[in-house]
Amino acid sequence: MSTFDVVDLIRTKRDGGTLSDDEIRWLIAAYTDGRVGDEQMAALAMAIFFRGLDDRELPTWTQAMIDSGVRMDFSSLSRPTADKHSTGGVGDKITLPLAPLVAACGVAVPQLSGRGLGHTGGTLDKLEAIPGWRAALSNEEMLAQLEDVGAVICAAGSGLAPADKKLYALRDVTGTVESIAMISASIMSKKIAEGTSALVLDVKTGAGAFMKKREDSDALARTMVALGKAAGVNTVALVTDMCAPLGRSAGNAVEVAESVEVLAGGGPADVVELTLALAREMLACAGVDADPAAALASGRAMDVWRRMIAAQGGDPDAPLPVARHTEVVRAASDGWVASMDALAVGLAAWRLGAGRARKEDPVQAAAGVTWTASVGDPVRAGQELFRLHTDDADRLPRALETLEGAVAISREPVERGPLVLGRIT
Amino acid sequence: MSTFDVVDLIRTKRDGGTLSDDEIRWLIAAYTDGRVGDEQMAALAMAIFFRGLDDRELPTWTQAMIDSGVRMDFSSLSRPTADKHSTGGVGDKITLPLAPLVAACGVAVPQLSGRGLGHTGGTLDKLEAIPGWRAALSNEEMLAQLEDVGAVICAAGSGLAPADKKLYALRDVTGTVESIAMISASIMSKKIAEGTSALVLDVKTGAGAFMKKREDSDALARTMVALGKAAGVNTVALVTDMCAPLGRSAGNAVEVAESVEVLAGGGPADVVELTLALAREMLACAGVDADPAAALASGRAMDVWRRMIAAQGGDPDAPLPVARHTEVVRAASDGWVASMDALAVGLAAWRLGAGRARKEDPVQAAAGVTWTASVGDPVRAGQELFRLHTDDADRLPRALETLEGAVAISREPVERGPLVLGRIT
Repeated sequence: MSTFDVVDLIRTKRDGGTLSDDEIRWLIAAYTDGRVGDEQMAALAMAIFFRGLDDRELPTWTQAMIDSGVRMDFSSLSRPTADKHSTGGVGDKITLPLAPLVAACGVAVPQLSGRGLGHTGGTLDKLEAIPGWRAALSNEEMLAQLEDVGAVICAAGSGLAPADKKLYALRDVTGTVESIAMISASIMSKKIAEGTSALVLDVKTGAGAFMKKREDSDALARTMVALGKAAGVNTVALVTDMCAPLGRSAGNAVEVAESVEVLAGGGPADVVELTLALAREMLACAGVDADPAAALASGRAMDVWRRMIAAQGGDPDAPLPVARHTEVVRAASDGWVASMDALAVGLAAWRLGAGRARKEDPVQAAAGVTWTASVGDPVRAGQELFRLHTDDADRLPRALETLEGAVAISREPVERGPLVLGRIT
Repeated sequence: MSTFDVVDLIRTKRDGGTLSDDEIRWLIAAYTDGRVGDEQMAALAMAIFFRGLDDRELPTWTQAMIDSGVRMDFSSLSRPTADKHSTGGVGDKITLPLAPLVAACGVAVPQLSGRGLGHTGGTLDKLEAIPGWRAALSNEEMLAQLEDVGAVICAAGSGLAPADKKLYALRDVTGTVESIAMISASIMSKKIAEGTSALVLDVKTGAGAFMKKREDSDALARTMVALGKAAGVNTVALVTDMCAPLGRSAGNAVEVAESVEVLAGGGPADVVELTLALAREMLACAGVDADPAAALASGRAMDVWRRMIAAQGGDPDAPLPVARHTEVVRAASDGWVASMDALAVGLAAWRLGAGRARKEDPVQAAAGVTWTASVGDPVRAGQELFRLHTDDADRLPRALETLEGAVAISREPVERGPLVLGRIT
């Protein structure tokens, strides 16, 4: 492989030029092994923030990040695979009911997930609220569970896209996260390296999402779908609303409980709706003709859930942890819930101990926020609106403050807008 | 002093906002002592490349870099001080005759200089061609020499604007040098820290200069003059032509020889013209009414030169080193020199060994290029145009190649344009 002068490459991008495929491959490889320094990649990342990566550069960049590590291979499985990725929202526990549901319909779901940082929480943190459940699996355990149970939710190994891991950590401390090109490359390099042949993206939009503006969410979805297709992964994206939080819980154990309700045939309407919508997309992408609503109603999805939890050491029948302290916020007036601030709810759950400020912080399994009414629901003055859960009573005042004004109550009936706003293929 | 989140500051600048004075002071102090990392400063430097620093931010940034180290104090001297800075050009040996000339007129000249990197050469490298001469002086030696001789050209101590030293090295490897705001802050923080009360800037423009476009050179000059005045330094800038190299030599010993010719009352017309123009500005800025042409003609400037060299251990009468190998380039046709490519001449001198590619490289005292005709001069076919000087014969082919086409010969007489293009106060 040729060698390039990294300062020349930074200046080229800075001045609006494009990088050749060879230059990009050299750059990612040299950054991964340390020949290109963090300070050089930080300057380049900022130049990319301003100049972007074009339709040729971005797939090359993404592929180079995949090539920095191993790519998993599920071709030995007896059924097709499908994976899902959400850009992160408050109360977004959809992976929990979705993975067993899609598996119950005959598609293997290898769901490699992460821990949460900031207000949106992580899937692994939620599942770790289940006594005994463990996130770390070897590749052999993962393959065996996919063949046997059909669904696995576990921690991504460190061998997947190490360039992305290094670059993401750098972007986080250098103010260069907010680039559609680099966000897309980061997500898609990990997802493509995970070896799935079909992928459904849930791109959130609105106040509680990373992308607040609809046009940015659409652009991110379009960019990621194109990257998936370019890498031979059948990819589709739903753009979904994240102005209000999903369901009626944000936290860890409280979200597991709500997911189990959905698998039992109940649960909040929005969580059921989004779980089914994403399941239909995953089945279609994987080329399997099945009705997820029937799999949910028949209890087959719940069966897979129980086996999936048990396979990873968890006891699906064990009681979930309960917080030592709770506090209630009541409705100030009669009316209908006109809006609920997803960001405020997410921050309150985080401040109660459900999330972490730094990577090395622990999370509280029982911490979180639950609520009794969603947008469009009628409420009466004095009725319980929010319940705050935490093991540290001294976390309550700040969380209560965060929730002040988080709900608007209208004197007129309110209709909740659609959850799925767009579909990008 | 308050503490800030550096990622917030980077994002603020990235998104077109401005940084408060407290934020800038914290940032420079925290970068100097390592609380802000190189990767964070690199990202910020790239954001500043795109967004700039406004008329309030830039003086604060510059002052914060000065405050990162010591500021010299020449107020104990019996005469006023004046300093000169050139943004760097090919054949630019003006400091050598200028410092003793201005000193001969009654103004103390504390000229702290650097070594060269790249094709423009460094004043200290040139003077080190003189047997015995040493660049390093203590502050006490410097003050004593200024009082006694009136002129000193020496290496800047490491205590001056250490933040600039660290930031300049970072910008050099991260493709963030080309920012008028950061170039101005870098130059002016050093010059202001050097403690002069008057400063004349020689801002080069044209193909052989760092700034190729006149409007960029003017902008740089205006920005630097404003920074100097804001810091209480009487500052003026001349914008001067650097399409063709200055004088008839580029290198180390060859430029010392040419400077001595000027001090002896001869030398190339353009070097004499620019030396006198800058001397007049320095004297005016320092408030001294004297005629530098008279000081040159009378030999008083040469007397100061000899004392200045001797005070730093140099022998002004010692023969200068001569290169082991020379090679001649001859004119291909009769006519007049229409243009001479300053960048090509500078690169050729550099490739012959006069400059360094990396900071730790040595330079050859005798290496360089001399020429017999400048723009506007008549030449005859077969006449010597360039002479290449080097101690390594294997450097000649590449240098010869660099000079190919560096001179255009016209069949019609050509008039050289003005050297001083603008004056900014």
